[in-house]
Amino acid sequence: MNISETAKWLREHDNYLILTHRRPDGDAIGSAAGLARGLRAVGRTAYVLHNPEITPRYLPYIEDYWASDTFSPDNVVTVDTASRDLFPVNWGDRAEHVALCIDHHPSNSGYAASSCVDSARASCGEIVYEILSQWPGAVDSETAAALYVAVSTDTGCFAFGNTTADTLLVASELARAGAPIARINRALFREKTRARAVLEGFIFSGLEFHFDGRAAISVITGDMLARAGATENDLDDIAALPGSIEGVWVGVTVRELSAPDDCKVSVRSGKDVDSNALCARFGGGGHAMAAGFTARARTDDVKAALIDALGEVFSGKPRA
Amino acid sequence: MNISETAKWLREHDNYLILTHRRPDGDAIGSAAGLARGLRAVGRTAYVLHNPEITPRYLPYIEDYWASDTFSPDNVVTVDTASRDLFPVNWGDRAEHVALCIDHHPSNSGYAASSCVDSARASCGEIVYEILSQWPGAVDSETAAALYVAVSTDTGCFAFGNTTADTLLVASELARAGAPIARINRALFREKTRARAVLEGFIFSGLEFHFDGRAAISVITGDMLARAGATENDLDDIAALPGSIEGVWVGVTVRELSAPDDCKVSVRSGKDVDSNALCARFGGGGHAMAAGFTARARTDDVKAALIDALGEVFSGKPRA
Repeated sequence: MNISETAKWLREHDNYLILTHRRPDGDAIGSAAGLARGLRAVGRTAYVLHNPEITPRYLPYIEDYWASDTFSPDNVVTVDTASRDLFPVNWGDRAEHVALCIDHHPSNSGYAASSCVDSARASCGEIVYEILSQWPGAVDSETAAALYVAVSTDTGCFAFGNTTADTLLVASELARAGAPIARINRALFREKTRARAVLEGFIFSGLEFHFDGRAAISVITGDMLARAGATENDLDDIAALPGSIEGVWVGVTVRELSAPDDCKVSVRSGKDVDSNALCARFGGGGHAMAAGFTARARTDDVKAALIDALGEVFSGKPRA
Repeated sequence: MNISETAKWLREHDNYLILTHRRPDGDAIGSAAGLARGLRAVGRTAYVLHNPEITPRYLPYIEDYWASDTFSPDNVVTVDTASRDLFPVNWGDRAEHVALCIDHHPSNSGYAASSCVDSARASCGEIVYEILSQWPGAVDSETAAALYVAVSTDTGCFAFGNTTADTLLVASELARAGAPIARINRALFREKTRARAVLEGFIFSGLEFHFDGRAAISVITGDMLARAGATENDLDDIAALPGSIEGVWVGVTVRELSAPDDCKVSVRSGKDVDSNALCARFGGGGHAMAAGFTARARTDDVKAALIDALGEVFSGKPRA
């Protein structure tokens, strides 16, 4: 369905339960909260299924919309969720019919009875905004705040390569509708926890460069995490750091997990190195520009093996 | 003059020399380059006075517009320049008449014969864009690129508190006009030099917290700069780092200059601490949220004196 068909369908039905995805990000949370509040603005009943994996910083935007255990929906709607295996952990294996899916992933599997999918959009929040815009007055300042969280987080505050003129236009209209963008930007993009800052300090000061500066490798030990006082919440997108250095084609993060011989490797690359192919050599995979694997080995051994593998990747690839 | 009066005046005159300001930032450079190219699009002759203090990363946007030594302008126009004492160093003390000033600083001194100043705008680039928008077709992709540099750098890629719905709307229109926003964002906001990354590592891992985490102090020694291989180009906005930590009200950077008993202090604060008042105690000053001073003393002694002064600032200010 296109935007106006989706808006029409949503007005013709009622009693919505909105689902986010596993390990929900800002786009999932903001889209769900914005959709719930927008539907209420036009007189519909709408709740969001509680997602136990939510990061605390997104809670304020959505906690007013969690469904009670007794809520019995007529229609289940998903946002930002490409396939059934990404449904929230507490959805279990309920085979319940999904009436509508609103999403921007090109890989969307088409699991819902109806879908409104636009993969040209940087965030699902943009699509939800376009739907709500069909109803005059449905986007108040709180809805705008939730949707701004969606749009800004999925684009790294408009700095990622997926940002388009449409993204910036939606952000402008959300700011105009009263989203407190200065406060949200400060909390989400300009402020680090103390533990995160100290950990970034360890990472940046300990980076190893190889192959003429084209590969940057960071090893994150359990001891570093402990000394920084870092928890899982402080590790968001930490794998992007080595690749953010000028001249680096591939950034690798080797992170020690609970035991010293158990580690997780994340690879991020530009278009000149295939992260997926590199990780496939170690039994992992992912996408061309972001992939990973886990290994039962010590971080130093994993690093040495990666440097060998990178040597083959860079052999015959002279620096441009 | 308002936007349409300014656009009309620019069409009625010709042979422009555009001035940027001392130590030009992205807004000055982007505004000047965009204005020069936009004026040429409507048949005017326009050049920018070479600014010897330009940071290398902004050169590609403006080097085609530098005036030759023999160019004899009829009209001098300044962009982003609040007062005469900010004129570029190679302008010397030429008393030459400034015909037009385009600026967004509330402190603009009104030194030009005509001024188009809008202090509600986050960047001068937004004002230049509005002027050029009066002439259909004047904003091509290269003009859009230069103006995008202006708008994005003055707002920290739309994350700073000065960003408005208008800023985002202008950015959207510049993207629509062909500004290569992904490439610009990567170069200006998502990429650090290796030296900068290592230096940030030293800074974050060496941060000292005082007063219940409300003050964060960083000492940057000459040795740290040398070990990181950092030059002046790697130090842009480095004073903002200590203040970017959650819970910090005031961030202080004490930087050793050429000699060990010569240092420069930068203070950044939220609204609860007056940076200007703090620095005034040491003979410096600035604004309420950003100020500084220099001291003929060793960094450790300056730090100790600052901690004493901060103790007075925080006494009687319980953590909210």
